Amino acid sequence: MSNKIKVGMLGIGNVGRGTYQALEMNHDKIAETTGLDIEIVKILNRRPQIDRGIDIPKDKYTADVDEILCDPEIDIVVELIGGIEPATEYMARALSNGKSVITANKAAIAANGKKLAALAQENHVLLRFEAAVAGGIPILTSLTTALLSNRFTGVHGILNGTTNYILTQMSEYGKSYEEALKDAQIKGFAEADPTADVEGFDAANKLSILISLIFGVDASPEVIPTHGITSVGINDIEFASDYGFRIKLLASAREKDGKVYGNVEPVLLPLSHPLASVSNEFNAVFVSGNAVDDLMFYGRGAGPLPTGSAVLGDIIGVARKIEKDSAYDIVPQLRYDSGLEFAGEGANKYYIRMMVPERTGILGKISTIFGEHGISVETVRQNSPYECSGETVADLIFIVFKVEKSELLSALEEVREAGVIKSIDSIMRVEE
Amino acid sequence: MSNKIKVGMLGIGNVGRGTYQALEMNHDKIAETTGLDIEIVKILNRRPQIDRGIDIPKDKYTADVDEILCDPEIDIVVELIGGIEPATEYMARALSNGKSVITANKAAIAANGKKLAALAQENHVLLRFEAAVAGGIPILTSLTTALLSNRFTGVHGILNGTTNYILTQMSEYGKSYEEALKDAQIKGFAEADPTADVEGFDAANKLSILISLIFGVDASPEVIPTHGITSVGINDIEFASDYGFRIKLLASAREKDGKVYGNVEPVLLPLSHPLASVSNEFNAVFVSGNAVDDLMFYGRGAGPLPTGSAVLGDIIGVARKIEKDSAYDIVPQLRYDSGLEFAGEGANKYYIRMMVPERTGILGKISTIFGEHGISVETVRQNSPYECSGETVADLIFIVFKVEKSELLSALEEVREAGVIKSIDSIMRVEE
Repeated sequence: MSNKIKVGMLGIGNVGRGTYQALEMNHDKIAETTGLDIEIVKILNRRPQIDRGIDIPKDKYTADVDEILCDPEIDIVVELIGGIEPATEYMARALSNGKSVITANKAAIAANGKKLAALAQENHVLLRFEAAVAGGIPILTSLTTALLSNRFTGVHGILNGTTNYILTQMSEYGKSYEEALKDAQIKGFAEADPTADVEGFDAANKLSILISLIFGVDASPEVIPTHGITSVGINDIEFASDYGFRIKLLASAREKDGKVYGNVEPVLLPLSHPLASVSNEFNAVFVSGNAVDDLMFYGRGAGPLPTGSAVLGDIIGVARKIEKDSAYDIVPQLRYDSGLEFAGEGANKYYIRMMVPERTGILGKISTIFGEHGISVETVRQNSPYECSGETVADLIFIVFKVEKSELLSALEEVREAGVIKSIDSIMRVEE
Repeated sequence: MSNKIKVGMLGIGNVGRGTYQALEMNHDKIAETTGLDIEIVKILNRRPQIDRGIDIPKDKYTADVDEILCDPEIDIVVELIGGIEPATEYMARALSNGKSVITANKAAIAANGKKLAALAQENHVLLRFEAAVAGGIPILTSLTTALLSNRFTGVHGILNGTTNYILTQMSEYGKSYEEALKDAQIKGFAEADPTADVEGFDAANKLSILISLIFGVDASPEVIPTHGITSVGINDIEFASDYGFRIKLLASAREKDGKVYGNVEPVLLPLSHPLASVSNEFNAVFVSGNAVDDLMFYGRGAGPLPTGSAVLGDIIGVARKIEKDSAYDIVPQLRYDSGLEFAGEGANKYYIRMMVPERTGILGKISTIFGEHGISVETVRQNSPYECSGETVADLIFIVFKVEKSELLSALEEVREAGVIKSIDSIMRVEE
């Protein structure tokens, strides 16, 4: 009774290897449970001489993408090349040829998901990308099936394992950013060029996909305010900890009065928040729905096998539809039709750290300027003075009540111009 | 383009009300996203005079179950009466009449799921019960879709909000069991007769369902070793905390060497375990798969709207299949065909608390008996002596390395017979 499903795979890097291995390990269990006999029949691999640490019959390899995209026997194309091009072009061609497409490629989906989803719909095939957000965590499937009964009010995610590892190491072992980054690189959690991770671009791609699924709004990564973790100092981590917070790179979006606000940035999370205890390379997504209330999903956001689990889950889902001849479905598709609007960062509570000379009257001056801009101070604290470039200085920390970021920045500009401070070293949102 | 789906609902208690409300709130969003126009057209309600705190047109009510089970217009029957009978009978009749069935009834599914699933299959309709385990948390859907690519090695759940609330209150505020229970009753987290919750029966029903889905084994609630929380003392909670543990009522199962082990009981969980920080009425399920590794789902395991979210999610899932005329599917169905065997509790680390008279030589005697039974002691600690019934006594706490429960019990029987102790007050598994 088993139905043969033939899969062609583009690329055999980490995720490709994990997908292949997950299928090797679990093929028989999947066949028993679903009646599906899934086989990866061809793999685009332009460097077959490289040892992948996994036993793949050499005759599955091809260097010619058309042998996969144009093979009428292949039902599903799995794109695991990464990067926007040529991945997008290959996916578009596969969809046009009537093949369903599965990908783990957040950059390509964030950039071209709308176009690819329309192409899938036109060709009555499926486009799935569970692995593109939070690795093995089944967040997209849940949002588009069991949780579809909700209107979502917010989503908050720790979506990048590299930065979460670095921040955890800084916070738990007092390591500097540089030490923690080096450590992450040695452990394989960070790449040689860590820019996409540490600057928040990777998280912004994932947030863009989540915003589209949850709110039905187009917020391409370029319009999402994105700040990485490179400016987070050990100072900030210590102060945050004293105030009962942990600093996390948070990708978040929420709906209010018909607008969607969101950004990617390091924030101060109260220790009582379930996301505050998500450590090291783990990912988690916290969603709030108007019926289900708060939910959190926690797991491995990267790694060959966990990501492979998500890719293979999508393969099974699509294969089932093919088997039942109901391949044309709407789940999980991106949406851009909710009538909501993406409006940037919105009003928030903020944490500000500045360096000031040791002199009286400075706090009064700053508070006056804040007051003129309608900014109320919740907490202020001055640290013990220390020497910096031959001058005695101190760190002055503020937590201010809700304010638009633009208003805060213009107040801080005025503070700077008043010449009473040395520098503004950190501005971070405080999550409530 | 909207497809009308007519739903008949049996019962309008808490979950029924939540389901009705969730649909009222989100009907239009669901219609926009899926093209489905879902309507609850009839509700079995034998006491229509009771105010449900929700505005339901009176003409939807019927006191005659056949008006729902035999109405050819109704596509889906939602069973929310609770209890094993007549709920099972009604579900069986609905399935036989070619209607898909959705239920939140863990007791009926744990007792009769096998029979009902077979009936659904025979009649080419669907049986879904996401709401039966962990309320709004989409665990069953995830296990049977996105995570189907895994072989599962274990599942651990905090599946009962009442007991988790009680244990949290005891641990955080030093309340006694009786105080915490009373408090839970006042807040509506515990029923007037709390037996099913505090004795672990509710959690055992849910674990039975999870075991069938995850391992494909029949472990009916009667064969699952089940211990409630009534014997957990404030002593145990304090000692556990000193050792770096938190006590939780855990429903767990794991596979080892072709056998499935599992039970429901209060256990000592290390503070570093993600389940240790699940507090109060929240639920969480922790699963381990051979590809995805560790995953945790956290959310509200009860309450009208969260549970209604899960019921409505199932309604949408089934409605989509009806719309595509592919109603006959295998997800999520119970399985009893994996060839594995349920083998009870298995070997574990244990925590034992006993009361001893203040006298030397007792520890030597107990250790000798333990040794004769092949039981190794990891930690032993004696508390400061105190007076009890005119005698000076002390609490003696052991944590012992992995041992079969039956072996441990026979050793403890020998200790008891040796007459060197006053009583054995607590035996709990230590989770690693």
